[in-house]
Amino acid sequence: MDVTGEGAEEAERKAPRTDRGRRTQRAILDAALAEFGERGFHEASISGITRRAGVALGSFYTYFDSKDALFRALVNDLSAQVRDHVAPAIRGAQDQVAAERAGLAAFLDFVRAHQEIYRIIDESEFVDPDSFRRHYSSTAERIEARLRAAAARGEIVDTVDEVHAWAIMGMNVFLGLRYGVWSNDRPVADVADVVAAMLARGIGR
Amino acid sequence: MDVTGEGAEEAERKAPRTDRGRRTQRAILDAALAEFGERGFHEASISGITRRAGVALGSFYTYFDSKDALFRALVNDLSAQVRDHVAPAIRGAQDQVAAERAGLAAFLDFVRAHQEIYRIIDESEFVDPDSFRRHYSSTAERIEARLRAAAARGEIVDTVDEVHAWAIMGMNVFLGLRYGVWSNDRPVADVADVVAAMLARGIGR
Repeated sequence: MDVTGEGAEEAERKAPRTDRGRRTQRAILDAALAEFGERGFHEASISGITRRAGVALGSFYTYFDSKDALFRALVNDLSAQVRDHVAPAIRGAQDQVAAERAGLAAFLDFVRAHQEIYRIIDESEFVDPDSFRRHYSSTAERIEARLRAAAARGEIVDTVDEVHAWAIMGMNVFLGLRYGVWSNDRPVADVADVVAAMLARGIGR
Repeated sequence: MDVTGEGAEEAERKAPRTDRGRRTQRAILDAALAEFGERGFHEASISGITRRAGVALGSFYTYFDSKDALFRALVNDLSAQVRDHVAPAIRGAQDQVAAERAGLAAFLDFVRAHQEIYRIIDESEFVDPDSFRRHYSSTAERIEARLRAAAARGEIVDTVDEVHAWAIMGMNVFLGLRYGVWSNDRPVADVADVVAAMLARGIGR
């Protein structure tokens, strides 16, 4: 399984050779986020996307082969955007519970600013199951790797494994749905504090 | 918000008056689970469902108004089936961490036996967003209520609130995806033990 997604991403995008090309490709991906997020995959159109991006239809085919290829590239792009947004917050924390807290807070901030991400990742289960699976597999592998590294440093219990990674990912995804997409009724720091306390000590007496 | 789903369910099903009617309606719902799970909402057909159920097309309209109404009834039915399958395991546990462990184990068993549930609940986000929202809202409210009751009994910390409920629901949903739908490579008891230890004491040192 290609868990990094990099291979698939390269195959789906025709890599631009110039800065201008990279800007055009970026504009198309951003427009695709808006169009797919608002209309869903089936109702979305390439012409709608190029119109939003302010690029000619010909430019689209310079960078993407089809609406399907663009959708796949977008899922990989969002997966990478989340990773890149969350990573610095995690790296800057002083221990692993603080890192998980910071990662969740950064994720909630990202979701509040890019609510369409849920509709797109969720729709990928139906439109492009391989991307859906790759997104969650690679996210869970990343979490597991950082938990194991922290256990090796003695910051957390040494029993951490794949189950913890999937549990933490699931928490974060659903907290993002509730407090990022559905409503902003709770401060991000507050949600992150509750989870950090639960991760640090559990809820048992 | 109708968080129990009962109101919506009654509106979508025409309640049968006889045991035979209830069996026919049950057969249609079970066939719908297979048909929607295998083909997805858009490709699924009423005639495919009645064929699987072994009932006449006319019987379908005795109990459901349309494919949309059947889908809504099915989401409510699955939501209720999960709840009814998990509830006895939770009630039989000796404290709240044991209850959450038992609830997760019962949920994983249910998912392994009814893998289509994921595709249907996930597709409801697009086909019937109200049902999607109601399913998760009502599940989270149920978890929050049992956590608060356990806190009042002194079994768990008294800070438990809605965030804990969404976190636990998210863990369970993603663990069900990974260890129930994608693969059976890990014993249910093993996954449940890991989560119970995390809930009891956290992962901090």
